Amino acid sequence: MSNATATPESTRPASARWISSSNNLTQQFLSFGGQPDMVSLAGGLPAAELYPVAAIQAASQRALANHGTAALEYGPVEGLPALRQLIADRVSAETGGSFSPANVMLTTGAMQALDLIGKVLVDAGDLIVTQSPTYVGALDAWRPRSPRYHKLDWTLHDPSLDRNLREAKFVYTVPNYSNPTGVLVSQECRAALLEKVIEAGTWLVEDDPYHSLQLDGPTGQTILHHYVAQNPGPYAGPVIYLGTVSKSLVPGLRVGWIIAEANLIQSLAVAKMSSDLSSSMFTQAVAFELLHANVDRTHAATMIPAYRERRDALCREAALRLSPWFEWETPVGGMFVWMRARNNAIDTNELYRFAVEEKVAFVPSSVFDFTGEDRFAMRVNFTRNAPEVLAEGVRRLERAIRNYLAAQKTP
Amino acid sequence: MSNATATPESTRPASARWISSSNNLTQQFLSFGGQPDMVSLAGGLPAAELYPVAAIQAASQRALANHGTAALEYGPVEGLPALRQLIADRVSAETGGSFSPANVMLTTGAMQALDLIGKVLVDAGDLIVTQSPTYVGALDAWRPRSPRYHKLDWTLHDPSLDRNLREAKFVYTVPNYSNPTGVLVSQECRAALLEKVIEAGTWLVEDDPYHSLQLDGPTGQTILHHYVAQNPGPYAGPVIYLGTVSKSLVPGLRVGWIIAEANLIQSLAVAKMSSDLSSSMFTQAVAFELLHANVDRTHAATMIPAYRERRDALCREAALRLSPWFEWETPVGGMFVWMRARNNAIDTNELYRFAVEEKVAFVPSSVFDFTGEDRFAMRVNFTRNAPEVLAEGVRRLERAIRNYLAAQKTP
Repeated sequence: MSNATATPESTRPASARWISSSNNLTQQFLSFGGQPDMVSLAGGLPAAELYPVAAIQAASQRALANHGTAALEYGPVEGLPALRQLIADRVSAETGGSFSPANVMLTTGAMQALDLIGKVLVDAGDLIVTQSPTYVGALDAWRPRSPRYHKLDWTLHDPSLDRNLREAKFVYTVPNYSNPTGVLVSQECRAALLEKVIEAGTWLVEDDPYHSLQLDGPTGQTILHHYVAQNPGPYAGPVIYLGTVSKSLVPGLRVGWIIAEANLIQSLAVAKMSSDLSSSMFTQAVAFELLHANVDRTHAATMIPAYRERRDALCREAALRLSPWFEWETPVGGMFVWMRARNNAIDTNELYRFAVEEKVAFVPSSVFDFTGEDRFAMRVNFTRNAPEVLAEGVRRLERAIRNYLAAQKTP
Repeated sequence: MSNATATPESTRPASARWISSSNNLTQQFLSFGGQPDMVSLAGGLPAAELYPVAAIQAASQRALANHGTAALEYGPVEGLPALRQLIADRVSAETGGSFSPANVMLTTGAMQALDLIGKVLVDAGDLIVTQSPTYVGALDAWRPRSPRYHKLDWTLHDPSLDRNLREAKFVYTVPNYSNPTGVLVSQECRAALLEKVIEAGTWLVEDDPYHSLQLDGPTGQTILHHYVAQNPGPYAGPVIYLGTVSKSLVPGLRVGWIIAEANLIQSLAVAKMSSDLSSSMFTQAVAFELLHANVDRTHAATMIPAYRERRDALCREAALRLSPWFEWETPVGGMFVWMRARNNAIDTNELYRFAVEEKVAFVPSSVFDFTGEDRFAMRVNFTRNAPEVLAEGVRRLERAIRNYLAAQKTP
């Protein structure tokens, strides 16, 4: 009688079509991170041992003491009013602009912001212009909406760019220490792209999670700042700016935000309501208390020297061991070194298998490319592990490369 | 020069098509709740003055002390392992079944579970069989996927039901104290629907947020329990069960969960990763500490007598003042009284305008109907306000009804 009435799983209804085109690589990388003997250079995770635990403990007490039951309610869809005001005040001070809470919506990390932007702006077949290689999470977020992509060339020499911008729902960019390449886009390129976006009448998503990780000096102005400098007064510009405390404090609060024109914020709020009613008011109240006390700014003073040391340790060991096969620029901030195989001689999708055997993980370039065709680079993280672990990871990578090359020679 | 380079908002790209079909009523109701002179009988909110604030304060300290930096990380997409285990253990104990953490995924409230189910199972034009009137949040969650609907008649007398079940991606039900009607579905109807679902080879979503609000005795077995009683062994059934701490503890932690067959959980995890990477590990650790200490169960002993008193106060005053025009069953649990206009003589979409003038809010029936055609009932909440406020709300409703009827007579 057991299972007599059960239907085999395979006869149940099929999944939505996008599921079959999804990758589960990010999940694999996250789970590798949990294996104790694996050196994971794959994730985009901060150093857990640096988390300001005591400050968060104190902030969570203040959250309930100062915000009371308001920290335990559903709360407004757009988020805790005090935190929206604080973020509006900060960006107004930083840019000289005039932002109000109506320009700010809080999200479950900046990742949810990407999901909501897709929900609000994209129907199947719509065009997104994106830098490429690009953040794999952004491609994941938009896959359920089935968009098309056009690659943004930051030099803006692409003769079809203007036409594609006019057709696009939005442009996606990570100008500060881009994921995956670590590149800091020049001020000239930012200004020139903004001008083209305004001419074309489209939106520009400026995703800025790494803003606080300024290892070798300041980032310069955000694209949002460029816009505001030209257009003072209440903000109604085309830049959709995404921020988060995931890199400046901790990811586990899942507090991110969108800064945008007020009508777009209202559409995003409709999408957010249909996604989860609201994010946690409790973690937003904790984040408010932390930002109000400038814990993110004081925490940067701890994080930055540690991350600089890690970046240097990784790049030093890599220069010794990997430079026969890979080349890279030392990034001036962020979390990643982007290593490109010389002469496209190493397929990193293939190398990955050998790396896992040597118990080291990275992210192969193909997942950052909407065509999946770039198979000759890898993203290597330097923030999560201590310098000596990073050096060990590089030694394992060298062995993996040698094993890969030996296997290539054997028919 | 100000705004010289700004593009008028209206020339920017259009929103996705579903946005224009969305309703902003829920947002209106939530915001009415915040007006101090409005008596809102509209929301589905617990009584804030009953929130176990001290227990949550203590639990948030234990969360960091016991879980350390694991409570501050991105964490696994599926949620904090300890809380998944606790929920699997609880449901195994309650049903006699055999559930593991692989059957459990944590979500940002049960609302996100609805969003993820839509993302994973529904392509445009796919069929959902749903009880109707139904939870407006479920209709909101699925609108971006553009489904079709067929109404579930709980008597199962609908001759087209079997055919529609075979075509449907899933059936949506709220058997315990349904939203909006407050109905407790009989054990016989639950068992009979389950049998039909198994025969048809589809999924059945059992949304159970009000489970703990048992004002007049136990709910009886969940549909999940019915399935497990017939099918012991590791769970692989068609029931997708949704739980939450939003009504049993507080909504502001945004901790809900899905219990389902393990392969479906994996697809839902892909969808969740593309939505927000993970929910907050911090609030999940707080929820773990609360459930581990059985705070939800002790809290029920405080909540239930208070909610019973409120329900009775509302129904008593309504019997005195509203029964010439409306009729209702006193609900045996949950949060709502569903009041239906006698002889469909009052259009509650129209009445709503008069109610707002008298500073009282309810939810008109049209928003719970996927066709929007049921305009002759209203959902009235009894948990959020003290008994005397509920009575005042009913008095205002009476005035609104009289004003509405007077206006009907004036051509």
